[in-house]
Amino acid sequence: MERDELGAWLRLLLTPGVGNATARQLLAALGGPHQVFEQSPAVLASLVGPRLADALLAPPPEWGRQLSTTWAWLQAGPAHHVLSLADAGYPPDLLQMPDPPTLLFVQGSLAALAHPQRVAVVGSRNPTPQGQLNAREFARALGHAGVCVVSGLALGVDGGAHEGALDAGAPTVAVVGTGLDRVYPARHKALAHRIAATGALISEYPLGTPPLAPHFPKRNRLIAALGQGTLVVEAALQSGSLITARLAADMGRDVFAIPGSIHSPQSRGCHALIRQGAKLVESAQDVLEELHVLPPADAAAPADEPPEVPATGDAALLAALGHDPVGLDALQARTGWPTAQLQAALLELELVGEVGRLPGGLFQRVGRV
Amino acid sequence: MERDELGAWLRLLLTPGVGNATARQLLAALGGPHQVFEQSPAVLASLVGPRLADALLAPPPEWGRQLSTTWAWLQAGPAHHVLSLADAGYPPDLLQMPDPPTLLFVQGSLAALAHPQRVAVVGSRNPTPQGQLNAREFARALGHAGVCVVSGLALGVDGGAHEGALDAGAPTVAVVGTGLDRVYPARHKALAHRIAATGALISEYPLGTPPLAPHFPKRNRLIAALGQGTLVVEAALQSGSLITARLAADMGRDVFAIPGSIHSPQSRGCHALIRQGAKLVESAQDVLEELHVLPPADAAAPADEPPEVPATGDAALLAALGHDPVGLDALQARTGWPTAQLQAALLELELVGEVGRLPGGLFQRVGRV
Repeated sequence: MERDELGAWLRLLLTPGVGNATARQLLAALGGPHQVFEQSPAVLASLVGPRLADALLAPPPEWGRQLSTTWAWLQAGPAHHVLSLADAGYPPDLLQMPDPPTLLFVQGSLAALAHPQRVAVVGSRNPTPQGQLNAREFARALGHAGVCVVSGLALGVDGGAHEGALDAGAPTVAVVGTGLDRVYPARHKALAHRIAATGALISEYPLGTPPLAPHFPKRNRLIAALGQGTLVVEAALQSGSLITARLAADMGRDVFAIPGSIHSPQSRGCHALIRQGAKLVESAQDVLEELHVLPPADAAAPADEPPEVPATGDAALLAALGHDPVGLDALQARTGWPTAQLQAALLELELVGEVGRLPGGLFQRVGRV
Repeated sequence: MERDELGAWLRLLLTPGVGNATARQLLAALGGPHQVFEQSPAVLASLVGPRLADALLAPPPEWGRQLSTTWAWLQAGPAHHVLSLADAGYPPDLLQMPDPPTLLFVQGSLAALAHPQRVAVVGSRNPTPQGQLNAREFARALGHAGVCVVSGLALGVDGGAHEGALDAGAPTVAVVGTGLDRVYPARHKALAHRIAATGALISEYPLGTPPLAPHFPKRNRLIAALGQGTLVVEAALQSGSLITARLAADMGRDVFAIPGSIHSPQSRGCHALIRQGAKLVESAQDVLEELHVLPPADAAAPADEPPEVPATGDAALLAALGHDPVGLDALQARTGWPTAQLQAALLELELVGEVGRLPGGLFQRVGRV
């Protein structure tokens, strides 16, 4: 994009009162952003009313500075891109929305945005430890199957989803609610760099935009639109993830939800979605089957490998544990081990997080997908 | 029922090769069991073929002894009943099946069988501790709402369901797979007595029938038929509870299932049911609403009462725990308590079963409905 053209798009983006829907309407009527600013007040007023016509004819005060910053950012590296609505590389899925972003700022690979198979993975910023693990392991399995995971870079499930995709060496797209020169939350700075290295960070907000509360739910519509389906890992009732799921359903996309304990508030949202028609999924395979994604032959291998097991003694104990909570007596009957050996081995498995201790002196294996 | 009439019914029941469906067919054609045994071989053969006609004309060898035993049992107490297909008190819901029991042995109150609102509560014989608790608490809440809980007296979920109903002072019906003079499993002897005192134990098998494997899945069809809906609390894939649920669905009854962790094999069956159209429920209230049961005004109270909480210090700690797994650091930050006090209080709550210890040094409240 030339500096001059970028300038016209930024001026449109920065004009107060002109949102994505109005911008799209002006462009549809007049052709391009340059044409917008060449019109007489009367023509503009006939299209968008006198108030917005006046706004469009007064260059926004921050325009010049914003253009310099953005132009410098674009020159700073080949991984910096700005896509306008008029760009051939603009993701067609976003055009299905009434208010597609006028400009899309991209840091990373444009190929990730055009990846043929994309699944949105979203959920609570405050998941249970198992929910966090599920996010990562579902995303890893989706990545292994060649799917690009789309999420929102938030703490909790979003972060786990991006990490799982990266674990699988798959591209992942993070839709953020700030300017791309800022990382929010700061704790995800390193993660954001890793995402940009093989996938993409994208934003509809100009550089320098701080984290503003209203931007995060708006950002959700892009996550929903970019996914061929949306998986909700854990979500409380009245959470942003449910908004994303509703937007996805409204766009006719599949919504998937992972069930959980009826006593966990972080599962309530998923249960509500299932009652409303979302598909209950127990594994990434369930998602892939619904979306008719066939894993590439070489990517199926990790799922077929036996799970990692510790040394022989521990393996025997894990087998004896099964997946149900069991007491020491039952374990002793199953293993035939003396009490001291059994207790030592259980403690060891507990310390490495393979086994949990439940009330009533029961032990249970901690599940992995 | 007169001794003579009981004798004719028992002879029909004991005739080898004559099952419930054949018995019903004979009774429909001929009127009553006496009429069956008055027919000529030719008439019987025209109805059920020559082999069964021969069987019907030879009194079964155990008939006399069985009649004496059953007659003595009937005289032994006012709570012992035998209902035949021809009896006005025979549960009409059972007649919807192709093979209603020819005779129904009842120990307890006939009123429980005719209770206007009945819900079947079934599930794994080997539930998780939370599943066991859920069975009891859902049944208790259903009982408080005036519903009669129907289950199968098995270990695990069935036992919890009966106990919950008894907790609420509500009648509960146990459909068993043995003769009523036997209790299986033996561990539920005291429970069976408590059920018979206010509700009913019922069986389609003659007295003295031992626990035989094929009887248990058959018994499930009676549980499904007696419930206006069937709630599956926890169930593995390919378990008897799923048979009960399928039979209930086939009879056009509602099926309800409680979701759980995707890593718990005891939740797989419930998840499969939900995918097949069962209603996901998080509380007994969800079940009552679907069945349009309005709790009586005085019965609503227990649900509104605050949950039982231990002494003040513990209540504060439980509040600080919330419902998510949390670490010691977070708890310290939330309570401001010194480490020693916090650890002592956590241990105490763990010992009374209010708190569980998870891998990674995390603590979690154990949920109650």
